Amino acid sequence: MEKTLALACELIRRPSVTPEDADCQQLMSERLAAIGFTCTDMPFGEVQNLWSERGSEGPIVVFAGHTDVVPTGPEGQWQSPPFEPTLRDGLLYGRGAADMKGSLAAMIVACEDFVAAHPDHKGRIGFLITSDEEGPAVNGTVKVMESLQAQGKAIDWCIVGEPSSTTELGDVVKNGRRGSLGATLTVKGVQGHIAYPHLAENPIHRALPALDALAREVWDQGNAFFPATSFQISNINGGTGATNVIPGELTVLFNFRFSTEVTDSELRQRTEAILDAHGLDYAIDWNLSGQAFLTPSGALVEAAVQSIREVAGVDTELSTAGGTSDGRFIAPTGAQVLELGPVNATIHKIDECVRADDLPRLAAMYRGILERLLLD
Amino acid sequence: MEKTLALACELIRRPSVTPEDADCQQLMSERLAAIGFTCTDMPFGEVQNLWSERGSEGPIVVFAGHTDVVPTGPEGQWQSPPFEPTLRDGLLYGRGAADMKGSLAAMIVACEDFVAAHPDHKGRIGFLITSDEEGPAVNGTVKVMESLQAQGKAIDWCIVGEPSSTTELGDVVKNGRRGSLGATLTVKGVQGHIAYPHLAENPIHRALPALDALAREVWDQGNAFFPATSFQISNINGGTGATNVIPGELTVLFNFRFSTEVTDSELRQRTEAILDAHGLDYAIDWNLSGQAFLTPSGALVEAAVQSIREVAGVDTELSTAGGTSDGRFIAPTGAQVLELGPVNATIHKIDECVRADDLPRLAAMYRGILERLLLD
Repeated sequence: MEKTLALACELIRRPSVTPEDADCQQLMSERLAAIGFTCTDMPFGEVQNLWSERGSEGPIVVFAGHTDVVPTGPEGQWQSPPFEPTLRDGLLYGRGAADMKGSLAAMIVACEDFVAAHPDHKGRIGFLITSDEEGPAVNGTVKVMESLQAQGKAIDWCIVGEPSSTTELGDVVKNGRRGSLGATLTVKGVQGHIAYPHLAENPIHRALPALDALAREVWDQGNAFFPATSFQISNINGGTGATNVIPGELTVLFNFRFSTEVTDSELRQRTEAILDAHGLDYAIDWNLSGQAFLTPSGALVEAAVQSIREVAGVDTELSTAGGTSDGRFIAPTGAQVLELGPVNATIHKIDECVRADDLPRLAAMYRGILERLLLD
Repeated sequence: MEKTLALACELIRRPSVTPEDADCQQLMSERLAAIGFTCTDMPFGEVQNLWSERGSEGPIVVFAGHTDVVPTGPEGQWQSPPFEPTLRDGLLYGRGAADMKGSLAAMIVACEDFVAAHPDHKGRIGFLITSDEEGPAVNGTVKVMESLQAQGKAIDWCIVGEPSSTTELGDVVKNGRRGSLGATLTVKGVQGHIAYPHLAENPIHRALPALDALAREVWDQGNAFFPATSFQISNINGGTGATNVIPGELTVLFNFRFSTEVTDSELRQRTEAILDAHGLDYAIDWNLSGQAFLTPSGALVEAAVQSIREVAGVDTELSTAGGTSDGRFIAPTGAQVLELGPVNATIHKIDECVRADDLPRLAAMYRGILERLLLD
């Protein structure tokens, strides 16, 4: 069996449902140690994290990823057991095949091939691996980054193995992600009987024009890499259940997905200014899930574009669409960050799979990036 | 003990929590039969109703009321047991003292005194008593009215014993009530992930301007007897609970309390026109609880105003404020309807009570109305 595929199978066989690692990181450490990496376990709580580094000086290229996978769903609905890697019609099936054990295998093989060909490469190579990306993401990448910063270590370039491709391998690379800012808004009124509205203050009525103004507000125009910032109400709840009572409170949950044209602090201020302008009596609880980040150009993007073209003959598209990823914890430190991985059509689904041929090709792309960044 | 007060105590002692009658109507029938009334039980379902009539021809004055009471709440919080009528500091305490067993006693005594003094009065006197006014009001007054209509019987004048007074006995008479029209509105959208709002259709956002327009709409200006029609949202619910999902539906419950300047059908049409103008995809389920009704002037109102002035020296105020009453089922048949009863400050509360002196005075007011309508 081809070696990238073989390693992917070994990783899939380990049932590492988040936050379990199931010894995936131990397997990776053994392979990395064999080619001169020093490996450091960085457990936090029940989460396993691995920091691994090769080379002693110069800029560092870090492969970032996660060994944990989402739950399988009803196992009986899988055509083959989710933790038994199975090849069928050129596809490798198994939970984590695409998200992201295939990428982890490709990263290891890319380094093995690169180091074998260029044992004295300049700069450094690192691995930042967690078992808490699919879960709360509290004791994973964010804690490792804090630890690295405390040691004075910075990351120059970071390749996250998230499955970025949409139709064919390499057609899309994520060079940033929108930020996510949530809020719980409580609008206060005065409860009363519906027959005596002059004695009550209906918080639903009071809130309507303010919420409409928030929904209509143009927060920015986006930019070349980001769509315009989006405001969406996910939940709205007011009322006692009775049909003859004006409630005393209305609760509204909303979320911004925001571009790099605004900051979360600007969004908070502008939201509260709109609420204030409508004279609402309210309380608001903000929750910043992730800052927006962007790696618009530079050596890393250029290396990825060239490497993908060389391996797959594809002109890749740079995109910032989709949900959040652990890149949000790495980019704020000043690192250039991009996400490159296999086709994401089946991730988190029953019968998750990846094209078997794509794994060695992904390894070749990663190796190509290393060559462009770490050779003269 | 004064006879009105004594009868009120006998009624309070019967624990007729809605829809129970607890033999209150039997007691009333015995007293009425003794002065020449024919009494007809009209049970529907678990509800006891009484129709009673004296006289053979001419216009009819009907006393309407209910023997059922609302639940006591925590009995331990009452200063004296709720079904043990208790006199304290000139007040008669007990569940139903004010709503409306005091009124029932006053009606009986008024008829006894009137018939004793005027055994050959012209016209007729009737009683329409139910044990389902505080409950769903499905098998009570509305069913008796249907039965009377089927027999070709019409009511000319109707005195409802609801506690209409606010500060002193007779200061307020209700000569109408606002209508009540409710609706359940479901606004439809397309559910989706909050990171991809262009693939979803947020029903909350779509509904906001339409709901705001409904809340701002001036439905009418009211008139001399009614405040302006009021629109109130009582409940609004949308959202899956998750903060990253745009919901597929929004549910809104609202209610009109409306004057005689609009009809329920106009309100439905105007509401749907506003929803249509905002391009909403929606379903709406209407529920008419009661039509507005008004007895602006005429012999009944005149008789009540004069009788109150004679007994209490009070210039009564005609009012249509407050919730619905069974008058809504009687007025649409063409009857003149008004509500006159004791001070309503403690109704539905712990330690419900009525001024003991007010009961014989209320009987005198009722008798004065009979004299003005049924004597030459």
